[in-house]
Amino acid sequence: MTEQFADLEARLDETRDARLAEYIEFLRIPSISTLPEHAADCQRAAEFLADRLRGAGLEHVEVAATEGHPVVYADWLHAPGAPTVLVYGHYDVQPVDPLELWVKPPFDPRVEDGRIYARGASDDKGQVHLHVQAAAAWLGVRGRLPINLRYVFEGEEESGSEHLDRWLAENRGRLSADLAVISDTGFFDGNVPAITVGLRGMMYAQLDVLGPRLDLHSGGYGGTVRNPATVLAEIIAALHDAEGHVNVPGFYDDVRPLSQGDREELARLPFDEAAYMASIGVTALWGEAGYTTLERRGARPTLDVNGLWGGFQGEGAKTIIPAHAHAKISCRLVPDQDPDRVFHLVRERVLALAPRGVRVDLQLINTGRPSLTPIDHPATRAAAAALREVFGRDPVYVREGGSVPVAASFESILGLPVVLLGFTPPDDQAHAPNESMRLDNYEGGIRTIVRYWAALASTPLR
Amino acid sequence: MTEQFADLEARLDETRDARLAEYIEFLRIPSISTLPEHAADCQRAAEFLADRLRGAGLEHVEVAATEGHPVVYADWLHAPGAPTVLVYGHYDVQPVDPLELWVKPPFDPRVEDGRIYARGASDDKGQVHLHVQAAAAWLGVRGRLPINLRYVFEGEEESGSEHLDRWLAENRGRLSADLAVISDTGFFDGNVPAITVGLRGMMYAQLDVLGPRLDLHSGGYGGTVRNPATVLAEIIAALHDAEGHVNVPGFYDDVRPLSQGDREELARLPFDEAAYMASIGVTALWGEAGYTTLERRGARPTLDVNGLWGGFQGEGAKTIIPAHAHAKISCRLVPDQDPDRVFHLVRERVLALAPRGVRVDLQLINTGRPSLTPIDHPATRAAAAALREVFGRDPVYVREGGSVPVAASFESILGLPVVLLGFTPPDDQAHAPNESMRLDNYEGGIRTIVRYWAALASTPLR
Repeated sequence: MTEQFADLEARLDETRDARLAEYIEFLRIPSISTLPEHAADCQRAAEFLADRLRGAGLEHVEVAATEGHPVVYADWLHAPGAPTVLVYGHYDVQPVDPLELWVKPPFDPRVEDGRIYARGASDDKGQVHLHVQAAAAWLGVRGRLPINLRYVFEGEEESGSEHLDRWLAENRGRLSADLAVISDTGFFDGNVPAITVGLRGMMYAQLDVLGPRLDLHSGGYGGTVRNPATVLAEIIAALHDAEGHVNVPGFYDDVRPLSQGDREELARLPFDEAAYMASIGVTALWGEAGYTTLERRGARPTLDVNGLWGGFQGEGAKTIIPAHAHAKISCRLVPDQDPDRVFHLVRERVLALAPRGVRVDLQLINTGRPSLTPIDHPATRAAAAALREVFGRDPVYVREGGSVPVAASFESILGLPVVLLGFTPPDDQAHAPNESMRLDNYEGGIRTIVRYWAALASTPLR
Repeated sequence: MTEQFADLEARLDETRDARLAEYIEFLRIPSISTLPEHAADCQRAAEFLADRLRGAGLEHVEVAATEGHPVVYADWLHAPGAPTVLVYGHYDVQPVDPLELWVKPPFDPRVEDGRIYARGASDDKGQVHLHVQAAAAWLGVRGRLPINLRYVFEGEEESGSEHLDRWLAENRGRLSADLAVISDTGFFDGNVPAITVGLRGMMYAQLDVLGPRLDLHSGGYGGTVRNPATVLAEIIAALHDAEGHVNVPGFYDDVRPLSQGDREELARLPFDEAAYMASIGVTALWGEAGYTTLERRGARPTLDVNGLWGGFQGEGAKTIIPAHAHAKISCRLVPDQDPDRVFHLVRERVLALAPRGVRVDLQLINTGRPSLTPIDHPATRAAAAALREVFGRDPVYVREGGSVPVAASFESILGLPVVLLGFTPPDDQAHAPNESMRLDNYEGGIRTIVRYWAALASTPLR
């Protein structure tokens, strides 16, 4: 620890118990955003959070109504010449089923073995709260922040962020910033500090195979006409080759190859394949030949069937040839793939596979661009330095397989670079029973943010 | 027409109008067996039929209660030394949706252009009624029948004959016979007299592919684990080869090959491929290489997907890897395939196709044996002679792709050979709006039955 932050550290040490009590109070509010019966709880959580932001010394604190749950906004803009950072988190939480698997009720937090257990402890109330505490330390001890800050905490992340994009667009004028920091990710396997630098893009489509006008009796027609369900299966089967490559001409044309450095970086990550398999209940992994699991997950594009249906799906037997069959098919994309181009390539391939006697089509449902935050971006490097100082080791740089839609929103609506800096342990059981946060991660998170803001004060971001 | 039946023909000519009026009265009863609100109508149709059987001179007429709709039983057993024939038909009818496509209401029969239009006109009230009329002619004119007859007319054929097998088993003692005649099929394309001599068997199973414990986020896991929906598709795709043969080792081992004679017989059938395609709304046919459509339909075994499902099936997008995926798979079987052996062969093949990382199984749902009534069986030959005499041409011998479950019941429960002798025109629109019966087929049917009973009197069936 450097002398530079001794006063802030001292304050944080003093306020530890009060902070934990407030964190627990926040976790007691069952702000489940998907369940209409918890709408009042979401409102209550928003107001609780607004109250704590005011208490910390933030300004323009507002519980901004949307057509869904409110957005909590606050700022502090008295650091002329320093950058402005927009911090994102969410105060809503996932549902709690299956309730019987919780050791204690999900909204009755318990502290045990250095962890706090409750729904929202990690995702994302704990991370929201640590941001408020970092600001409170600065403002309480020094009466100022080293940079300008804006907070946007939404209440609908777990139900699809339905109204956030509109709120961002409508408030674009007052959300000017130089950087967005999203604290809704976590540490890596083994609890190693991590910065997420890559997010895959998306192409989502529906495959339709249409055959006879109506379901046919399989006795009278079986063996004489194309069966749309069989054709659907044959098309899907032909979209991968025997080595797990996506079998669509041109699909890999724009994929930025993994450099030797990228591969070494990923290979250095501590990754326990057996634990990964056990956590999801499979006995073998599978993927594109020539790549490791971490490369497949973060740096290679995929094509998956998200669902399929057609014909008889009930108990017992119904002897029909389905009139039609369908599948949802999506691709996770990596730089520099273009989602629209990928859609056209997959569609061409699907149409080429369509036999006579059925009509086949692929309809686009949605797309999202892949993104990659450069590891050598000054905001990334400053975050890494803060993590190193607090947690005593360099962070790893992770390419997440998923998309964080809000990251794309900040990029596309507000034009901001995004740093994904989160603190939850990998075994946090977010979305599952007995969700928890390690208190060391939470406290270290506050101290990392305290330092990060200081480092950004002298980092040119534009 | 031979002199032998002149008295019977004269009576039939005289009673034509009264018969048509009675037929219409029968058709006015909306005996839709699947709809609970029509239960009383089914009872009424059963009583109407019982009343007409009594009027015709049949004995032991009974509306026998079941747990569903009643079975109507009657007999006449005063021809010692002559064979006993059990006649099957059904007095219940299909639902009538879509009602708006009917030219006149389905239970308001209209006679037009030599046809009678109404729900049940062909399937199967018309065929039941022609049997009653044939008996009425014999008993009315000559006071006797040339053979012993038992009638079993059920009221649940269109809802799965749920209680028939039990009733047959419970009444086995009083249903002794030498032959079952089922009049629930029809003439061939172009209205050529037909006798159905082959019925395909069945093996119906469910394919299950089980992957991770829960649906996975396709972002975090896409490309690293086996996707059960994709595996399902790959297994289904591998069950046929490029030429449309079922790609299951041993599947064709027990298939009785089509003889040159069989193929010539089938090739002689008038069959309009364009009309067949138009009737079901497809633009191309497909099937096993090396066989014609009629061969594929009646004489070759098939494997079809009757339905499939797994993962997300709603509107829009949900980015999951389904935890499991399923399909209903059935085979139509031909002599001498054994349904249980076929199940084991398909299961072995499916398991051999299962990759590591998922659990795959095939569960048996039901089976039915294929059957073939020999063309040279004396009961078949006698039926052919009666058809030839009345309709002026030889019947064709049809192998139906479907199964007639009740035929299997008569074979397995009562141990009877079965002749499938029906009279409806191929364009009867059974199960569809504007169902109709050609009056020439109906009248010719009565005259055929009149002759058939006479011919069987001197035909040794055992």
